[in-house]
Amino acid sequence: MSQYWSPLVHDLEPYVPGEQPKMADLVKLNTNENPFGPSPKVLEAIRSELNDSLRLYPDPEGESLRRTIADYHGVSPEQVFLGNGSDEVLAHIFQALFQHGEPVLFPDISYSFYPVYCGLYRIEARPVPVTESFEIDPEDYRQANGGIIFPNPNAPTGRFLALDKVEAILRANPDRVVVVDEAYVDFGGDSAIPLVDRYPNLLVCQTLSKARSLAGLRVGFAIAQAELIEALNRVKNSFNSYPLDRLALAGAKAAFEDEAWFRRCREAVIHERERVTSALEGLGFEVLPSKANFVFARHPGRSGSELARGLRGQGIIVRHFDKPRIRDFLRITIGTTEQNDALIRGLQTL
Amino acid sequence: MSQYWSPLVHDLEPYVPGEQPKMADLVKLNTNENPFGPSPKVLEAIRSELNDSLRLYPDPEGESLRRTIADYHGVSPEQVFLGNGSDEVLAHIFQALFQHGEPVLFPDISYSFYPVYCGLYRIEARPVPVTESFEIDPEDYRQANGGIIFPNPNAPTGRFLALDKVEAILRANPDRVVVVDEAYVDFGGDSAIPLVDRYPNLLVCQTLSKARSLAGLRVGFAIAQAELIEALNRVKNSFNSYPLDRLALAGAKAAFEDEAWFRRCREAVIHERERVTSALEGLGFEVLPSKANFVFARHPGRSGSELARGLRGQGIIVRHFDKPRIRDFLRITIGTTEQNDALIRGLQTL
Repeated sequence: MSQYWSPLVHDLEPYVPGEQPKMADLVKLNTNENPFGPSPKVLEAIRSELNDSLRLYPDPEGESLRRTIADYHGVSPEQVFLGNGSDEVLAHIFQALFQHGEPVLFPDISYSFYPVYCGLYRIEARPVPVTESFEIDPEDYRQANGGIIFPNPNAPTGRFLALDKVEAILRANPDRVVVVDEAYVDFGGDSAIPLVDRYPNLLVCQTLSKARSLAGLRVGFAIAQAELIEALNRVKNSFNSYPLDRLALAGAKAAFEDEAWFRRCREAVIHERERVTSALEGLGFEVLPSKANFVFARHPGRSGSELARGLRGQGIIVRHFDKPRIRDFLRITIGTTEQNDALIRGLQTL
Repeated sequence: MSQYWSPLVHDLEPYVPGEQPKMADLVKLNTNENPFGPSPKVLEAIRSELNDSLRLYPDPEGESLRRTIADYHGVSPEQVFLGNGSDEVLAHIFQALFQHGEPVLFPDISYSFYPVYCGLYRIEARPVPVTESFEIDPEDYRQANGGIIFPNPNAPTGRFLALDKVEAILRANPDRVVVVDEAYVDFGGDSAIPLVDRYPNLLVCQTLSKARSLAGLRVGFAIAQAELIEALNRVKNSFNSYPLDRLALAGAKAAFEDEAWFRRCREAVIHERERVTSALEGLGFEVLPSKANFVFARHPGRSGSELARGLRGQGIIVRHFDKPRIRDFLRITIGTTEQNDALIRGLQTL
């Protein structure tokens, strides 16, 4: 507490990111990073930018990258907004599109940054319980709100909501923005981007941190009709003119230009996810059906905290949320074949 | 206008950054970039990070860089806050430390982003006129306020406020945070960082974009007592866990480790600034005394817009602000010897 702090600061409950342990040789399956590195073409593109031009500001509009993403997804550049990771994009969304004096709806089991943004912008948060089977039911989103947001696939459950159900939510809320946070969509889900032209209230958010192996570079983006993007631009240009540095702009562009690498990595992750799922089921775990690069699993006879602690003792880090309804689950990132084998062996010995 | 926008968005008047023209061969003296590239050790450090580790999130606390900056400036790591350029640091400052229901004070001729931040966080902005000679008078900062901020050296004037006058402002406002925005301090001014231990209400903000030639990498930082830094951390961790990417963290650290390069570049800039000042005075310009990497100059017989337009016709871009009191001035970044010669020749022919 401090007399100097804005009163808001006293009430904040900041987000706690997954641990980034500094020890080497850990089997790190706790922050949903891609087990494979980025495309060599990404590294090459960054290397080409690594020169005296770093003395110059980057393009504040990121025009070249926006054009690449627009072409990739079949939209126009004015429909693309860039941010310093999708977390920054999400923050701007809450400020620019969700402050309407009514609660923002999101699933109770979901990305735990959403209520934090609500706190930062003094928006009422209204978590909507997912079903017993941890699914989003569109019927639950027929209530007064200032905006709706959910990850698809959902995190940490991994469950994917079919697009006809996404559309049901969009149609039931024509006067409010519905944000589909597709951080994990490339691992087997269908993107809602093709719906953008039909729904002026739809905004889709994606990241390069997961399927494109660039968590360390901090690039996220949103796609929507130009009117929604304009709101984000106004907030962004009132916050920080240049959120993406020259190297990130160059690397991100190259990531979209190596489709073969992208497909190979994501297919390998999907293949390993199915293998890990079977192995966990063989060990007696219940595993929620996942379309993400992680699985969410619980064991009928062991508590989540006990399992997480046991794995940690073997140098294997997974994520455990000490929260109602999901206390007994582990969220396990899909790693390389070797890492996944280590995880399975580790669980066998517990 | 849109039904989907938060009401706030309609009222925003975003900041307009200096133009980043895409034509080559321009003499670009409009955004106060350093004419010299970054230290080769910076490029080398980034190259070392350019590998598969980009798939992993960066350290959300930037611990290693914070320790380097703390050691460099003789403070402790908990007194250092990092941001995605000092613009992001400033945004967090306005939200975390300036929202007290009273107007924030800043010089009327100053960084034009300050009133924009006020708009974004719904804080009343109260510009305080600088004197006839474009100086900040501490006496003018004895009035009720929710916080005070000024660049030192000031931008776009280049004028430096001596530290005893900074202290006068600090002492007159013991209950409010006073932010000294030292983006340009390395070009001949004295930093207020050594005052931090004595003034719990002092926060100093710096950037690597100017004297350290890294505008393209987006790194800024703040130094204050730990209590103020904690407020910034709480806001940052409610906004974006990882604002600095792995490459920026590595490059910024290396920039502080090559003191020889830093000194050589800044001395060259200072030397050229004095030469440009004399040349401009020889052409009949009034040049405000500058401690920055730019000069602010006007000609008694020519309007600022006319001069800026004339230079642009010759491929030389300087910054002109079409604003009261400074309409007749040009803000001219100090370039390389060749660029400065081109500028002087250009003005001679106008």
